[in-house]
Amino acid sequence: MAYAGRVLIYGGRGALGAKCVSHFKANSFWVGSIDLAENPEANCNIVVDKNESFAGQETSIIAAVGEALKDERLDGIFCVAGGWAGGNAKKDLCKNSELMWQQSVCSSLIAASLAAKYLNESGVLQLTGAKAALEPTPGMIGYGLAKSAVHHLTKSLADKSGGLPENSVVLAILPVTLDTPMNRKWMPDADRSTWTPLEFVADLFVKWAKREGRPESGTLLQLVTKESRTSVTAA
Amino acid sequence: MAYAGRVLIYGGRGALGAKCVSHFKANSFWVGSIDLAENPEANCNIVVDKNESFAGQETSIIAAVGEALKDERLDGIFCVAGGWAGGNAKKDLCKNSELMWQQSVCSSLIAASLAAKYLNESGVLQLTGAKAALEPTPGMIGYGLAKSAVHHLTKSLADKSGGLPENSVVLAILPVTLDTPMNRKWMPDADRSTWTPLEFVADLFVKWAKREGRPESGTLLQLVTKESRTSVTAA
Repeated sequence: MAYAGRVLIYGGRGALGAKCVSHFKANSFWVGSIDLAENPEANCNIVVDKNESFAGQETSIIAAVGEALKDERLDGIFCVAGGWAGGNAKKDLCKNSELMWQQSVCSSLIAASLAAKYLNESGVLQLTGAKAALEPTPGMIGYGLAKSAVHHLTKSLADKSGGLPENSVVLAILPVTLDTPMNRKWMPDADRSTWTPLEFVADLFVKWAKREGRPESGTLLQLVTKESRTSVTAA
Repeated sequence: MAYAGRVLIYGGRGALGAKCVSHFKANSFWVGSIDLAENPEANCNIVVDKNESFAGQETSIIAAVGEALKDERLDGIFCVAGGWAGGNAKKDLCKNSELMWQQSVCSSLIAASLAAKYLNESGVLQLTGAKAALEPTPGMIGYGLAKSAVHHLTKSLADKSGGLPENSVVLAILPVTLDTPMNRKWMPDADRSTWTPLEFVADLFVKWAKREGRPESGTLLQLVTKESRTSVTAA
């Protein structure tokens, strides 16, 4: 079978990740999913052992992706793994920050390592920041500092000497609130007309994988939804 | 004996940290040192067990500082622990980033937790960023993203709702190159007239602990040395 291209979804079992897996499949892509559990819809699953050290995870995942790809390369790597924790310096600062480091920064770093090794020339690496982290985040300190690190990583990788394949691009999305089942559960009374639909994001990614409408490498793209319409604006 | 005040130096056994311990002692402060090894000059040593988990280290250090202080509080916490690692996405990205996370971010987070618990009202918490991390750092990606996280942490903590005691201030220094024995060893041919003397930094800290010449809380202070003169400029 001829595929439209090959992509990896890091976090392919989460709400946004699963939507991406479906949408890429519907667009005839070969899709690999990396997550703590399998996504049966993916062409290939790489299951992360969360008891393994960070360096160990990197080694295992790089080896597994290499085996899955054989001599092929990837048109896109989309890293939508992540999480959220609130809190200031008074309580659980270290615990929350470590969790955010693991969920947002470690996944982004492994995605970047994979991109350096397996991305096509002119492929795309996508990371997930947060619009909130463009400003101080005193009520969710660990979350903000981890997302701020992801923003910095995006800009460093975009440089010619950052180590990604020639002509590839790295882009970060900076959502406000995504319309996920978890957010619906925890914020039942919120105004969902300001939440970004997962379909919008998945559609954007498919375009990028097809080399359509890509902003300049290194751009931090704020996803702002108002009255159920989403705009994409460089930070 | 009446002390001029009480301070903690996180990283009190390193080059800059040891200079700070000496300088505060010479100015009649009670000085506690937190590091992987003891600094015999300090009034009190808290030795970090680097085999302990991050959360475990936080718990142990908070307990040990509480015991050392009894009912006293601190006028300043100076976090000068840190390290450096180069490299882009092609090699050891995860390994280097994890090391930078541990050395720069974890120490800053524990210092922030200590500040929330033990700093005086109108005390000072100092963290260590890097001028280089104000821009992308493609040749030292892990270093840059960790320092960028420290910058973000500084700004979050400076907010009224960040969890630090009322009227306390948090400041980050952003050095270029400090004149340390290690830097002399590794860059023997560099122009040292652009390196910042440790005495300058230690002197600045003593002033801040005495509530003299403190910039506004949350300021990132670039230390730029030219022709052996150092200027302190807000980023």
